Amino acid sequence: MAGSSYGTIFQITTWGESHGPSLGVVVDGCPAGLTLCADDIQTYLDRRKPGKTRISTQRQEADEIEILSGLFEGKTTGTPIAMMIRNTSHRSTDYSDIASYYRPGHADYTFDAKYGFRDYRGGGRSSGRETVCRVAGGAVAAKLLQEFGIRLSAYTLSIGPVKIDRAQFDADAIFTTPTGMPDRNASVLAEAYLEECMRNCDSAGGVIECIIDGVPAGLGDPVFEKLDANLCKAIMSIGAVKAMEIGDGIEVSTRSGSQNNDPFCRKDGQTVKLTNHAGGILGGISDGSRIILRAHIKPTPSIFSPQRTVNRQGEEIEIAIKGRHDPVIVPRAVVVVETMAALTIADALLLNASAKLDHLKKIYDR
Amino acid sequence: MAGSSYGTIFQITTWGESHGPSLGVVVDGCPAGLTLCADDIQTYLDRRKPGKTRISTQRQEADEIEILSGLFEGKTTGTPIAMMIRNTSHRSTDYSDIASYYRPGHADYTFDAKYGFRDYRGGGRSSGRETVCRVAGGAVAAKLLQEFGIRLSAYTLSIGPVKIDRAQFDADAIFTTPTGMPDRNASVLAEAYLEECMRNCDSAGGVIECIIDGVPAGLGDPVFEKLDANLCKAIMSIGAVKAMEIGDGIEVSTRSGSQNNDPFCRKDGQTVKLTNHAGGILGGISDGSRIILRAHIKPTPSIFSPQRTVNRQGEEIEIAIKGRHDPVIVPRAVVVVETMAALTIADALLLNASAKLDHLKKIYDR
Amino acid sequence: MAGSSYGTIFQITTWGESHGPSLGVVVDGCPAGLTLCADDIQTYLDRRKPGKTRISTQRQEADEIEILSGLFEGKTTGTPIAMMIRNTSHRSTDYSDIASYYRPGHADYTFDAKYGFRDYRGGGRSSGRETVCRVAGGAVAAKLLQEFGIRLSAYTLSIGPVKIDRAQFDADAIFTTPTGMPDRNASVLAEAYLEECMRNCDSAGGVIECIIDGVPAGLGDPVFEKLDANLCKAIMSIGAVKAMEIGDGIEVSTRSGSQNNDPFCRKDGQTVKLTNHAGGILGGISDGSRIILRAHIKPTPSIFSPQRTVNRQGEEIEIAIKGRHDPVIVPRAVVVVETMAALTIADALLLNASAKLDHLKKIYDR
Amino acid sequence: MAGSSYGTIFQITTWGESHGPSLGVVVDGCPAGLTLCADDIQTYLDRRKPGKTRISTQRQEADEIEILSGLFEGKTTGTPIAMMIRNTSHRSTDYSDIASYYRPGHADYTFDAKYGFRDYRGGGRSSGRETVCRVAGGAVAAKLLQEFGIRLSAYTLSIGPVKIDRAQFDADAIFTTPTGMPDRNASVLAEAYLEECMRNCDSAGGVIECIIDGVPAGLGDPVFEKLDANLCKAIMSIGAVKAMEIGDGIEVSTRSGSQNNDPFCRKDGQTVKLTNHAGGILGGISDGSRIILRAHIKPTPSIFSPQRTVNRQGEEIEIAIKGRHDPVIVPRAVVVVETMAALTIADALLLNASAKLDHLKKIYDR
Repeated sequence: MAGSSYGTIFQITTWGESHGPSLGVVVDGCPAGLTLCADDIQTYLDRRKPGKTRISTQRQEADEIEILSGLFEGKTTGTPIAMMIRNTSHRSTDYSDIASYYRPGHADYTFDAKYGFRDYRGGGRSSGRETVCRVAGGAVAAKLLQEFGIRLSAYTLSIGPVKIDRAQFDADAIFTTPTGMPDRNASVLAEAYLEECMRNCDSAGGVIECIIDGVPAGLGDPVFEKLDANLCKAIMSIGAVKAMEIGDGIEVSTRSGSQNNDPFCRKDGQTVKLTNHAGGILGGISDGSRIILRAHIKPTPSIFSPQRTVNRQGEEIEIAIKGRHDPVIVPRAVVVVETMAALTIADALLLNASAKLDHLKKIYDR
Repeated sequence: MAGSSYGTIFQITTWGESHGPSLGVVVDGCPAGLTLCADDIQTYLDRRKPGKTRISTQRQEADEIEILSGLFEGKTTGTPIAMMIRNTSHRSTDYSDIASYYRPGHADYTFDAKYGFRDYRGGGRSSGRETVCRVAGGAVAAKLLQEFGIRLSAYTLSIGPVKIDRAQFDADAIFTTPTGMPDRNASVLAEAYLEECMRNCDSAGGVIECIIDGVPAGLGDPVFEKLDANLCKAIMSIGAVKAMEIGDGIEVSTRSGSQNNDPFCRKDGQTVKLTNHAGGILGGISDGSRIILRAHIKPTPSIFSPQRTVNRQGEEIEIAIKGRHDPVIVPRAVVVVETMAALTIADALLLNASAKLDHLKKIYDR
Repeated sequence: MAGSSYGTIFQITTWGESHGPSLGVVVDGCPAGLTLCADDIQTYLDRRKPGKTRISTQRQEADEIEILSGLFEGKTTGTPIAMMIRNTSHRSTDYSDIASYYRPGHADYTFDAKYGFRDYRGGGRSSGRETVCRVAGGAVAAKLLQEFGIRLSAYTLSIGPVKIDRAQFDADAIFTTPTGMPDRNASVLAEAYLEECMRNCDSAGGVIECIIDGVPAGLGDPVFEKLDANLCKAIMSIGAVKAMEIGDGIEVSTRSGSQNNDPFCRKDGQTVKLTNHAGGILGGISDGSRIILRAHIKPTPSIFSPQRTVNRQGEEIEIAIKGRHDPVIVPRAVVVVETMAALTIADALLLNASAKLDHLKKIYDR
Repeated sequence: MAGSSYGTIFQITTWGESHGPSLGVVVDGCPAGLTLCADDIQTYLDRRKPGKTRISTQRQEADEIEILSGLFEGKTTGTPIAMMIRNTSHRSTDYSDIASYYRPGHADYTFDAKYGFRDYRGGGRSSGRETVCRVAGGAVAAKLLQEFGIRLSAYTLSIGPVKIDRAQFDADAIFTTPTGMPDRNASVLAEAYLEECMRNCDSAGGVIECIIDGVPAGLGDPVFEKLDANLCKAIMSIGAVKAMEIGDGIEVSTRSGSQNNDPFCRKDGQTVKLTNHAGGILGGISDGSRIILRAHIKPTPSIFSPQRTVNRQGEEIEIAIKGRHDPVIVPRAVVVVETMAALTIADALLLNASAKLDHLKKIYDR
């Protein structure tokens, strides 16, 4: 348990480093009988693939999925689904620089402190490349959720100072703008901002929002395994996320109860909420309305302008980072947020199967 | 696993409802040999105790701790420490109202959706009273952390629109103001704001900050069990928390990398960070500097002004909640945030014991 | 995680020592909606209660169950069921003897080695009294299993050299003989043997068998969480169990495959096994036939005849143990074996709820 | 959590089927700084490799290990160690037979019952081939244990009716006899017995013993996570194991306490046990003496003589199994038992690191 597994029943275990031969994920606990093929996964990996646009790293990776186990005649068998992605573009660079000092904003120093040494090639296990395995595993979760009418959609809400205009929300734009913004105008402005960052040898951060529709009421557990607590952990575990909001998030602290409570009402014969400040979760349990969350992401720590730091010999030095880096990780992180949310919802869906006697009686026909 | 346990090695399991005979917590995995007594726990419970000020619920609870196991001659034995707190002031009120409808902002509807029915007396398991067990368990964690020079301090940063002035930070005020604010002026303003809320039959939210000093570099694991991810889960699992920040949190998304990176430097022969935008955690692992987090808390959903809702028969109705409720939960939640953070750090401290061979060789003298 | 919890979804956490004020168990993960009352538990505790016969310890304990949480209007709510049993007969004996040396066959030495010291009063946490909590928790599991037509029955198969005659199997005798043997003649012989042991200041061991009927095919997971592996762990975790068998157990090692395989056949329109050497489990998964297991239990280590040992000062000494001890623990352990098996089956029943897509579709009506 | 992971801190997750492209294992939680290379693993895999002798399956598999992550400059980094073994000899046989009926003694029926269908090619996930991943993972554990002077040795104790003569114990013979027996004479007799089984189109079972030296006192936890309980689970989870013994095992049930207790005495300035009926574990915690366990293994269910069974259409039929099968799995299972024991001891070693305050103070220099 060095923390490479996520989930209680629907569980993924990931492995691999930036510059090893390959990375991979084992999905255990996926129910048997789900139709699944490599394309279901590849579609998600392609959304994260580097090198597609000017505002992403120029490292070229095919990020091609190989499914090694757990499928038979096009369906999941209930046994572990192992998947592997080969590293094809890890350059045989000289890493003596990066080995000798601690890059600000990176995990170099903390890995050395924890383990006594580190695999410094491209960040090793702390590289953002690790997230490719989350996406592969989460794609299976998303496919499972589809069977229950649960749909997730993540997108870029802002990059640096540039925010989308919600009145212009255009879901198609998520997949066609280089920023992942559902607003073409904002996306053009964000690209201009990023060009300026690159000219300044600097980088940018941003905010990703994820909405989840079709979640039945009742997922999540009342105390420590609240659905919102697990969503936050899942998404905070993505490197570079520094804050998380559910529903109206940080705004609620300045509101009064009468402003913030969502009244219940009736619609189409159902009990629903008139508003959704809560973001779809009450008392840690899904309430049947849209789940909404936001992840705040720091600017890429790898910047080309000179920085102060310390080397392993304990000397203060000035460095200039080289290599291929994303000026902003937000657009590529969108699908990582979406798939981590999918993993969390899938696990809650499975855990809830044994929450009441009626569920079990349906299964076992008693 | 219905989610009543928290922690991997240092683990608590809580039980109990608002209106049952008692609530309790079992602490398992606390190392043997820690000096511990009831007073160590009681001090923390007293910080959370209701009925002490005008701005807290008038429910009077002694919240007296009984330690039932796991201690011998004043020390922990390594076996489970069971603690119990009796409910003494649960009124035998008529709950037929609350049983028949769904209170906005509460978990009534979601409990019914999940379990088919609910213990409606005072909110049952979803009552904020549940947190008394977190505090008792977390007090043990805090005592353990003291042995390693790790000190936690949580306080109120804001209530409604009233924020503390960091230039006036006064640590003593945390324990002496009714708001838990480390700024007496701000506290007076916040009290006035709360008086107004009460007059309006309304409630307020706020923000709690927690700082943790003395954490050695190296705690937390690189991928899913990042220290910040676990802190967020721990604290998001407290009812009413709707957003979480680590370090500079939401502000980082609009910064450039050159502004946000913390340069390393040397100080007193140690490698340290010149700034601490990161809040003491890099790549999910503690970096030796102060850990900083903030929890954004919604206004108390129990308000006395009339609200729209739906009853179990599916009829739209208007209700007016009665009873004894905190107009703001922030001051009483301060110690809950602090102890949940303590539990998370204690668990990471224990998990890190087996992270490298050198650690084990020291223990087993090889 | 100092090992005081058992189960993945249906999970118990136990606490308490032989000579503390009380012992207890928290059952988490029991589905909501199960009818349950204190009597359901008490019936099981009474089967384990000491002081009822000449061949059990003369310590008198009421072993009265108190349910502290998790029930509402006679049904489980899905939240933790906390139960407590008070110690009423722990004598304020002088324990300076037992504190100063290591009793052979007991955990005195290993507790000191592990923790640096121990609560020596009556064995502390290592006392057999700990099992009262397993029985209370397992009684809830057994009640749940009844809803699905799953019935467990454990009984004494042998005490010392005295074995039951399977041809004389009498299920009623389990509850009426002081030995828990389903054969009155064998029981009389066993009692005579035990009287002799007591005269010799010695003790006896024996074998307990447990049969489980009505388990649907499909429980258990293929690799590490095999149903038989979990049953063995559950029952080996009861102090004094030194061997475990499933089905024909140790006999299979000398058989040929043609003798040991159970042919499938058809009966009443069902596929069943013609024989049941396998004991109801194939490949770690229940096959729908009767599950059979046996636990081999060592003689009580507390004997009144003189024994060699070493004291904490490292001197070889001779001791004579005093106090109230069972000359054989087998009869009282019968219900412990039965309830540990119940906990294991209940957990497997709940875990299997998400094993295939069809199960989930039934629950979520998709 | 479909049961493909084993261990709490030192944890393996395995994947793969008999006839997929490859099988693999992810080792998470191995401490950083352990010297490790592919040869360390290969040595163990070679002990399990098929096709080496007349009494093993004629399936030829190279069983060559590939390490894909977690090592840097010859040492473990603390991050997951992924390993893969390619299947090279899975014949493209016609599996329509095996797909259509249930082989007695196999998991065909139970997989269908659990999942609704199964990957029938060579047994899929239920194939003994799965154990290759346990051996690879366990080899890492064994390497770790060497650093602490802990040595494991498993061997064949009996095959069918042929037992070793303990007076002739020859440790070298374990590696040089085709049976894995530490007694050359017994091995010759066992081979003759197996030849006869093969002539009769039948198969044999046997017993494997494992001894573990150098385990420090104090490993294992008092209640549910007893060291013996975990060893039993680990080894019962190997397909075909039907009974487990610790120390004198089944013999203790007929002994008296005075015969079975192990007196403590002094030797070389240490407190040790004069005898070791207990098999190195008292109260679930290692006592510093040799740990001894035995696994009873059923005869290979795949036999060439005709058998009765039922097909998927529910018709009674007679079948004759074809293909390449071990007439006895005991010799090849020896290293599987040894490595599962190694995994269990390694995990207990790591878990014990946080059992007492003194341990932690050594690590954190407080």
